[in-house]
Order: sequence, then structure tokens, then C-alpha cells
Amino acid sequence: MVLEFAASPKTKPPAKMSTPSPFLYSILILIVSFLCQASAIQLNGARYLGNFWSSSRTLSLRAPKYQYETKYFQQKLDHFSFADLPSFSQRYLINTQHWEGPSRSAPIFLYCGNEGDIEWFAANTGFVWEIAPRFGAMVIFPEHRYYGESMPYGSKEEAYKNATSLSYLTAEQALADYAVLITELKRNLSAQACPVVLFGGSYGGMLAAWMRLKYPHISIGALASSAPVLQFEDLVPPETFYSIVSDGFRRESMSCFNTIKESWDVINKVGQINGGLAQLTKTFHICRELESVDSLSNWLESAYSYLAMVNYPYSTDFLMPLPGSPIKEVCRKIDSLPDGASVLQCIFEGISIYYNYTGKVDCFDLNDDPHGMSGWDWQACTEMIMPMASNRTTSMFPEFYYDPKSNEEQCLKDFHVKPRPTWITTEFGGHAFKSALKAFGSNIIFSNGLLDPWSGGSVLEDVSETIVALTTKKGAHHLDLRAATAEDPDWLLDQRSSEIKLIRGWLDEHYDKKKAISAYR
Amino acid sequence: MVLEFAASPKTKPPAKMSTPSPFLYSILILIVSFLCQASAIQLNGARYLGNFWSSSRTLSLRAPKYQYETKYFQQKLDHFSFADLPSFSQRYLINTQHWEGPSRSAPIFLYCGNEGDIEWFAANTGFVWEIAPRFGAMVIFPEHRYYGESMPYGSKEEAYKNATSLSYLTAEQALADYAVLITELKRNLSAQACPVVLFGGSYGGMLAAWMRLKYPHISIGALASSAPVLQFEDLVPPETFYSIVSDGFRRESMSCFNTIKESWDVINKVGQINGGLAQLTKTFHICRELESVDSLSNWLESAYSYLAMVNYPYSTDFLMPLPGSPIKEVCRKIDSLPDGASVLQCIFEGISIYYNYTGKVDCFDLNDDPHGMSGWDWQACTEMIMPMASNRTTSMFPEFYYDPKSNEEQCLKDFHVKPRPTWITTEFGGHAFKSALKAFGSNIIFSNGLLDPWSGGSVLEDVSETIVALTTKKGAHHLDLRAATAEDPDWLLDQRSSEIKLIRGWLDEHYDKKKAISAYR
Repeated sequence: MVLEFAASPKTKPPAKMSTPSPFLYSILILIVSFLCQASAIQLNGARYLGNFWSSSRTLSLRAPKYQYETKYFQQKLDHFSFADLPSFSQRYLINTQHWEGPSRSAPIFLYCGNEGDIEWFAANTGFVWEIAPRFGAMVIFPEHRYYGESMPYGSKEEAYKNATSLSYLTAEQALADYAVLITELKRNLSAQACPVVLFGGSYGGMLAAWMRLKYPHISIGALASSAPVLQFEDLVPPETFYSIVSDGFRRESMSCFNTIKESWDVINKVGQINGGLAQLTKTFHICRELESVDSLSNWLESAYSYLAMVNYPYSTDFLMPLPGSPIKEVCRKIDSLPDGASVLQCIFEGISIYYNYTGKVDCFDLNDDPHGMSGWDWQACTEMIMPMASNRTTSMFPEFYYDPKSNEEQCLKDFHVKPRPTWITTEFGGHAFKSALKAFGSNIIFSNGLLDPWSGGSVLEDVSETIVALTTKKGAHHLDLRAATAEDPDWLLDQRSSEIKLIRGWLDEHYDKKKAISAYR
Repeated sequence: MVLEFAASPKTKPPAKMSTPSPFLYSILILIVSFLCQASAIQLNGARYLGNFWSSSRTLSLRAPKYQYETKYFQQKLDHFSFADLPSFSQRYLINTQHWEGPSRSAPIFLYCGNEGDIEWFAANTGFVWEIAPRFGAMVIFPEHRYYGESMPYGSKEEAYKNATSLSYLTAEQALADYAVLITELKRNLSAQACPVVLFGGSYGGMLAAWMRLKYPHISIGALASSAPVLQFEDLVPPETFYSIVSDGFRRESMSCFNTIKESWDVINKVGQINGGLAQLTKTFHICRELESVDSLSNWLESAYSYLAMVNYPYSTDFLMPLPGSPIKEVCRKIDSLPDGASVLQCIFEGISIYYNYTGKVDCFDLNDDPHGMSGWDWQACTEMIMPMASNRTTSMFPEFYYDPKSNEEQCLKDFHVKPRPTWITTEFGGHAFKSALKAFGSNIIFSNGLLDPWSGGSVLEDVSETIVALTTKKGAHHLDLRAATAEDPDWLLDQRSSEIKLIRGWLDEHYDKKKAISAYR
């Protein structure tokens, strides 16, 4: 793990930090962006789940341990029209140290940057850095447009000014950026014959899979980790995400699951009585008095969802400093309270594992949103319409339906933009996605950990001989892409080893074919 | 053949026409648009070949014999951004008369409209109409944006106003139009399970192949007839086109080939002497005195190139009313003149087969360009950069090189737009196009007639078991897509029968798979 985050109240920075630097601030933004996947739930499911960062927190970090050069490439703002628009400077990180070069047609490993600063993804995708040397591979991490330093119109302020300036923040444009960048780069390095292997996690994994689908000539294969490519329209039931989160708690303890399930009504009842909000504020150690019950519920829901995403087998500090198998710990806490303890006290103690594992937080600020409009919020209001719902049968969350209309209203209000809920399925495939891939595709790994609530929207069964699903029962959100640790369990080692073997197979096949062509000639 | 064209001087309409109607005018525009493929040569090869229509001509037509309804669909102007742009009305022709409907998952045959009025393509693509009933298929001909009636901004005048209004005239946007249209249409008809088979000729064939590549979930296969998908960058030698045209003449008669090859110097020499232009004007029956030798040369070059494209085995009136094997006729004329005849006289007599087969033209107007800026000219200045050159070894044309710089200057001058010569290869595949298709593709027929000069930029060998090349030695530009005639030679019947068999195979396989899935469930 490269970055280390310490949760602490905003008003009380941890001793080791002096003043927040712009760099730290930008790291914060990345993480928010990354986490904003959840805000898709809010926006698309007309449900608030994106307030993870509302809790006051500051961060500390160590410098990334991976070496690379930082370069920039001029990109067209709209690849698909000839409108007279300013170009923008796309940042990319590149390491050619272990690359065996064009003469050996050595491979290029390209990570499809997702919704955040590319340095953060580079730092958190140790797998690519670790395996590159044994493949003699170049490593490239291009940044996604409108994130990090890759800002159209010269600055984030200008790029995020309004719906017009944001309008070119789309997945298709990002894919075209990657295609143009790698084509030009290979041309400049006389590396046209060097095969490209794509990597990506979460939205980046979706991009890697889509890139393979839309630009098969650009790469020879893709590892798409925790990529919910089917989390659109009605491809999977909208309850999927929350059901998987709930399963994670149910699996640990039925009484824990039931306590959480009951808690919503209790919170609502308390919230409705005189002085109820003050009472909830006190019980949950909220810094400023709650203005509504919803903000508390959303804050709790966020924690449960993120806990499921990072339910890793060993302690991490990816989103928050957390113990290994954090859901187990949360439930242990909830279940271990004495009989006299109230439901709310149980919930607070449980949630504190997530929001305050270091024990340094005195109070939580639910309305802390220093970041304003984030890129993912825009994407979730335009293309990335991932319907979410919760039903009382499978979910421990309050019941709610997916309501496209209220989602549209919210997006019109927030961004003056109308969502296109059927666009992603039209562009990349809907119900026919898998059968189209089977007939018209090859060399994609869809890797998933089944504890990850996003796994329900991904590909969990082999599509063909070369489009395969690698699932681990105990894995969570793209754990396989992270750096190796001494604590990696066997099943994780196996998963990574399968991935390496498959990638090796793609390359061997590629070189064999090339040899055959040369021999033929 | 449905439309009938009669060449005649502009100043002298043929008796059967009264006054040019707006409808006729629009038909004229279509044909020009279609023919403007050749103007790509002019623009990309810095060489003028697009003045086919400079000869004065008017048209007559009979109503198309195929039955369809004309409908309209609102499309986004930019599918790949969320810029606040007006939508536009896309026209499509639809016939459901023989369609066996959703209950039988009956197929949908979709012709990818190309650079012209869709009614013209519908009228000239008899093959699709003729085979649809035996497949129980629906037939759809959607129109390409910026052509025919499918005009953004409400009118051609507004759509073609400037580079800004034209900027959304791209192949990628057109493909997305087709994807969105067919997805919505299937949804509305509850026909999601109905497989789509794509058809296209020339640029439409490129669109059909690219559609299969980019939207594999939308269709199960594509017949791409005479689709020069490799006529970009350095994928094929730039001399290819003119070499094939020249071969067509060399094959018929070496002396004919030599006469044409010699003629350019003769024309230049005559043009340089005093009164030379007047002499050329007279010899070639040009209505208005020539201002330069170039305009005459271009006019001649156009004719030779179009003759090669429509070098069909029987008489047609596709571009012009022409005899069967028109190159043979032209050469017969050139070769049959008495020994005393001058080279220029020979050339004039030969070319008259093309420009004046009906014998009704008194004089030719080389500068007749009533159409102004055409859509294909824009496309040829933006994405469709097809390098062309002519060398003295393989070509009967004057020598010239492909000069990207002068092409760029011309496009900046004409349209205030800068060409993107490497974009198509980046977006759809360059040197790796075929190998990517092999690894990541299925069910495409690349059909070509080897007499067609565009065949050199197409796929002429099987790429895989399911991506096959059907070539005919004696075929020309997408002859296979035309309606059957009593004169169809055996090799053409064979080609069409192979196509039908392959399409049937795609459908059978599709239904078998579906059945397997149903049985499994």
C-alpha cells in the first residue's frame, strides 16, 4: 500500500500533518472521484449514497514507490466532430525501464485511467508495475480527460464551469484519447509491432473491456477488474448492488444484519420526536446538529456500501484505514454490545469501525463537501446511468425504487443536462453484450471478487474460450490489481497467477501468429 | 434499373423533360454526392478527378419500383458529447410487408445509407429488396446524416453553411445514428430478438463493415460490397486506384492504353501554342472556351475512372447510359479510327462513348457545378483522406504524387478545416485491421469486382472462416447489390448465391444458438 489515509476530524488535523498542501488536496479529490461511483447510486437510483466524504477527514500519504516519467500529449476535445474546439493536454505516466523495445516487439501495458488523478491509480495498481519487468513491458498510465491535470480549457475551474464545458467528458471520448495516444506513441517509438495489453479497475476496467470491444486493433487483450459493464438499464436487477452489500453482513451474522435492518425505523422514529435530531446528533457524534434524518441514513448507507467494496482479507488503508475483513469486525462490534444497549448505540459502535478505526475522530461532519461538482457526478448524470434499488426481501437497507424521472429532474437541476439512460447499452451492448462478445471478441479477463457489490453488474461466467471470468469468493473491489503483500491469501495469489498466465498466452499467441506471417512471407 | 439518366447539354434539356423540378434537382445532387468519391482523389491526391458532373447533363427518372414507407426519427447531432445541440430528423425507408415479425424473430435487413439521398440507394440496391421476402425480412434504408432530407439545422443551406454547421458530418456519428435508430425501432416493435443483417455498397459498404466492427451487438453480419476500407494512409500503395483503372484499358487493348497515355503530352503541347485552348475546345466540343488544359485533363481522367467503376458486363444507366463492357467500347472506338486520325480525335471519339452514348449532347460544359459544396467533399477533407497517386510505370494517367501538405492547404482554403489523415486508421484499424478482424470479428462479406478501381483498397482475401472475400474477376463497383437482370452472367449469379448462402448461414447459426439457450433455460 502506498498511500496512507488517516481519518480525523477536519477541525483537528493529525499531528503528523502540518497544513494541507495543494497536493494533498488533489489526492483528496481523486479519492472522492473514485468513490463517486457510489454517487451514481444516488443520482440514478434517486437515492443518496454519495456522502462518504461528508465525514470530516484529512489524509496523509507516502510518496508512490513506482518510478515513471510524466508526459503530456495534445488531444482533440471532440474526436467525433470537426467543431473548432481547443485541444487539451492529456497527462500520462510512462516507464520504459524494463521495456525490451521495438526490436523485440516487446509489449506495452496500458492502464485505462479512470475518474481520478492518474498518479493515484498508478500508486494503487501495483500489479501492473510488478509484472511488467518479467514481460519486458513498457508501462503507461494515461489520465482520463477532465481528471487530475488533464483538464480541457486550461483549468479545472474552466473545464467544470457548466454543461457546455463539461460536455466532452464522456467514456467514448476517453477511449478515443487512449487510442490516439497509443497509436501516436507507437509511431514515434517505431513500436507499431509492439502488442498492447490493457488493464483497468472499476470504471477503468469498464474502459479496458470497452476499449477491447471498440478498438480491437489497438490491443491484444484486456484485464478488466471489477468492471460493472452490465450495471445499466435492466441488464441486471436494480436491487443487485444493495443485495450483495446486505449479503456481506448477513453472511457474517444474521443478528447484525437484522439490527441494521431494524435501525432505519428506529432512526426515523427518533428523528420525528421533539429533540430527536439533537439526540441522533449526540448518539452518532455528529459535529453539527443534523438537519434531517436522511443525511444520517445516507451517511450510514455509504459506510455499509464502502465496507462491502473494501471487504479485503487483510488490513488496508485504501479508502479508510481498516482492519482485515472489516464487515466481520463491524458485525462483531454490533453483536457484542450488552443486551441493554440500544439499536442506535449498536449501529454507532459498528459504524465507528469504518469511520473511526484509528479512534482519532471526535466528531463527524456529514456536510463537509469541499469538492463541489465532481466529474463522476457529471458522468453519472449523462451516460453512466446505473439503476439502483433496494427491496425488503434481500436488502438490509430501506426500501426504495429506481425512478428514472426523478433522476432526470435531479440532473437537469444539478447540471442542466438530460441523462441518456439507454446510450451505454446502445453504444457498448445491452442484453446482447455477452453473445456479441462471444461471436465477436477475444482475450478479455473479467476479474471479480464476489464480496464486491459491483460484481453483480459484471461478467461472472466465461463468455468464450478467450473471454473468461476469474471470480474469487472472498475478493472485493479489484483487489487483484493492488500490489502484492506478505498477507495475500492463496486464492488471491492463484487469481493473479491465472491472470499472468492468460496474458502470457495472449502474447505467445500474438508472437506465434507474427512468426507465422513472417515465415509465410 | 429504376432511374434513367440522359446526358444532354445543360442549355438544351431533352424533349421529355419540361422544367427541372426540385425533385429532379435533388436527385441530381444525390448522384453527384455518390460520385464525389472521386473528388476524394482530387482532394487527397491533390489531383482533380471530381468534375464528372461538370459535363452538362440533366436527368429523367422513373419512380422506384420498390415499396416502402418513409419515416423520420429524431437523432442527437453529437452522440459523443452532451453539448446542447439541436436534434435533427433522420429519414428512413421501411418495408415490413414480408417481415415475419417478432414472434418468429424474423430478420431485419438494414442498408447503411451512404453519401446521397437514401431513395436513390434504395432504388439502386435491388438485391436487398429481392432477397428480403425469402428471408421473411423487414427492410430498412436509413439515410446518412447531411444527405437527402436528413439535414441538421433544418435545411441543407443551414447544414452546409460553414465548418461549424458541417462539423458533425462524420462516419462515427452516422454509425451511431444507425445504432440508435435500430435499437429504438426494435424496442418499439418488441423486436429485440430479431437479428439484423447489414448491407452497404462503396462508402456504405465501409459503414456496414465498420458497423459490424464497432457495434457487433447490433447486427449478426454484414455484406460490405466494394468497400475500400484499406484505402487510407499507407495501407495500400497510393497508385492502386489509377493502376487498376489503367489495367482496365490495357487489358482491352495495348494500343488504346498507349494512345491515352500519350494524349496528355499532346494536350499539353497543343494547349501551350497560340490558339491552342481554342483548338482543344473545338476538338472536344466544349461549350465554353477552355481556360486551362487542366480542366480538360481532369474531365478526361474522371471519365476513365468512372468507366472503370461501371465497367459492367451489360448495358446500364447507373452513372450514365452506357453499353455493356464500356471500356471495351471506348477502346474499340479509339483503336478503330483511321491511321490519319489525330490522337486528340481518337480520344474525343473514345470519351464520347462515356459522355455522350445517347448522341444527344451537342457540347459539354466542364464548369457546370450547380451543387456547390457537397457533403462528400467535406468528408474527404476531414476523415476520408484516401491518398492517391499515379506513376508512369503502371498508369496511363499523368504522373503525380500524393501530397498531404497541399491537400491540407486546399481543405483549409475550401472548408476552413484541417484534415485528420490518421484518424480513420486509428478509429477503425490500420495495418492491424485484418489481423484484428481475424482475432476479434466474424460474419462479414467483403465483395468486390476486380475491374472496380476501388477493389484495390478493399479486402480481397478471406480473413477468417467467417470474414470472407467474394471477388469476381469481371465485376465492377458493387454490381452484386443491383437488381437481378436477365443478362446477369453466371459468375454474378454465383456471387449473389454465395452471399445468400452465407447470410442464411449467419441466421441459421444465430437461431441455433438462441434455441440452445432456450433449451438450456
